[in-house]
Amino acid sequence: MAPERPVTVALDGYGAERGFDVLAQGARLAAADGIGVRVFGPERALGLSGANGIEVVDTTEAVANDEDPVPAVRAKKEASVVRAARDVAEGSSAAMISCGSTGATMAAATFGLRRLKGVQRPALAVQVPVPGKPVLFLDVGANVEVRAQHLAQFAFLGAAFSAAVLEVRDPSVGLLTVGEEAGKGREEVVEAGRLLSQAPGIRFVGNVEGRDLPAATVDVVVTDGFTGNVSLKLLEGTAKVVAAAVGDAARSNPLAAAGGLLLKPALNGLRRELHPDTTGGAILLGLRGTAVVGHGSSGAEGIANAIRLAARCAEVDAVGRTAALLAEGGAGRGALAADTDA
Amino acid sequence: MAPERPVTVALDGYGAERGFDVLAQGARLAAADGIGVRVFGPERALGLSGANGIEVVDTTEAVANDEDPVPAVRAKKEASVVRAARDVAEGSSAAMISCGSTGATMAAATFGLRRLKGVQRPALAVQVPVPGKPVLFLDVGANVEVRAQHLAQFAFLGAAFSAAVLEVRDPSVGLLTVGEEAGKGREEVVEAGRLLSQAPGIRFVGNVEGRDLPAATVDVVVTDGFTGNVSLKLLEGTAKVVAAAVGDAARSNPLAAAGGLLLKPALNGLRRELHPDTTGGAILLGLRGTAVVGHGSSGAEGIANAIRLAARCAEVDAVGRTAALLAEGGAGRGALAADTDA
Repeated sequence: MAPERPVTVALDGYGAERGFDVLAQGARLAAADGIGVRVFGPERALGLSGANGIEVVDTTEAVANDEDPVPAVRAKKEASVVRAARDVAEGSSAAMISCGSTGATMAAATFGLRRLKGVQRPALAVQVPVPGKPVLFLDVGANVEVRAQHLAQFAFLGAAFSAAVLEVRDPSVGLLTVGEEAGKGREEVVEAGRLLSQAPGIRFVGNVEGRDLPAATVDVVVTDGFTGNVSLKLLEGTAKVVAAAVGDAARSNPLAAAGGLLLKPALNGLRRELHPDTTGGAILLGLRGTAVVGHGSSGAEGIANAIRLAARCAEVDAVGRTAALLAEGGAGRGALAADTDA
Repeated sequence: MAPERPVTVALDGYGAERGFDVLAQGARLAAADGIGVRVFGPERALGLSGANGIEVVDTTEAVANDEDPVPAVRAKKEASVVRAARDVAEGSSAAMISCGSTGATMAAATFGLRRLKGVQRPALAVQVPVPGKPVLFLDVGANVEVRAQHLAQFAFLGAAFSAAVLEVRDPSVGLLTVGEEAGKGREEVVEAGRLLSQAPGIRFVGNVEGRDLPAATVDVVVTDGFTGNVSLKLLEGTAKVVAAAVGDAARSNPLAAAGGLLLKPALNGLRRELHPDTTGGAILLGLRGTAVVGHGSSGAEGIANAIRLAARCAEVDAVGRTAALLAEGGAGRGALAADTDA
């Protein structure tokens, strides 16, 4: 589905921990794919003037990582992440992406893009970097405390995104908890399982456990933002530690070293597959526009992948299709409308 | 610290998923180390009569995995896990271990062994199977919902066990949450952090994140039983999936296969290190006796390691030293006594 005109993405020019050069390089890589990039950052430091497919909107204010996100976003109307969100709301860009503070990106996107009809809480989703079939995992940090209805909504949001953007047909959805049997887990999780097992329009397969995430037994795994955030960092950390230990094993003696050398090309593919940068970052689901939260520590390729993910969401009209699937699948009734604190 | 007489461990003869033969073989392996084993299970099926260092107390009742643990343990006074707990309470064994239902083992141990003075909620702890320095992780499933005071107690229980049994000097303790800064996370986690940062007698280093667990940045990681259970299964699952993917990479082409063959001995060591069976299972902390929860899926070596862990706890008087450290470190005041629902 190649668009007639290139999709344009609004990129927060601040927040990349490796500096403006790496961010600029990421923008160039994405632009080389035919994606239009509007960068909100310091023109001089970015050094992107005249770069093909890239427009820099000179911006010198930013929300720092250590600022309280909500008040900072409310106060700084001209901060880069706020301007990027406004660019999407005004229709100049089709999606936004920031590698800065996750909280500030969520706040700017939620205020700037607004929630889809019926959605109480937007959720942050990632494609989990496990070998083989990707798993969509949410919420990975937007809501540290949730109610049952929120979890049920996350299931619908995740299923809709999985179908629309990841092209999974009739995605299976599991609820993360401490045992397979219904009734295992915190009160709100048990209640969410009950709501989902009765909800039409979703293929809810019941409870899943921690091991199901790396084993990819379902297409979408739903949890609260506390458990999800801890789990995602744990998963990334474990993959990294195990990969490093394999490297250590390969340096432990000369025979193993020879083996490691022969094995290296095959292992490099795996390392790429497991690297968080490969999937491009997290997507904030439930809004009337696309917002991608990139990794602050990303290299140029990781930033480019985050821009590509944002562009892809726009190209396939992820928001429109999510809204349609939500409406179809009972967004306006049942689980999703059971209570409203919106 | 070799004891004059061998330590005797009460072993639940039911619950090992691989059958009575594997359980019996595990008992033999542990007995060969000089540990006395009293097995509560079906004498004929176990085939252990006359085995050196092993005594079978013929028992034909058991709590099944699908039974509701608390009522089952209350009703079945002669069930194997209940008798094993009673054996410790009566002083015939020094510690108990079961590979059956975790819930039943916790219920039998809590009713049979009772809680240490001042402890509100026993917690389940494991040594996390990561390469290098082991990390004690709790609670991994005893309490799916907790209050701040419970989390603060888990920190003391974990630190005491780490010092007494794992011989870590002045263990560092971290609180698992979604960000390093104080104030990140669920309400009860933030409050627990506040309590611990003011508590004497514990080296509390503040918040840790999911990645700190595999990276072993602290000696003890504290969380609630929901997050801990999900995290532990996720960690074990990820290590397994990554190890399998390394194996797949080694079979992807002839050169890689040759490399994999040369690397194999070094990788086998790592695989052993990462395998859950290596650490022998989880320990229920906060009771007046030692109870070990083995893996239901353990092989003979895993069961033997669980028996060895129970014996080791008894040999070093883990319970007495934990009680002493709790009393010393503020068990009777401050965080631990701030509220009592005992």
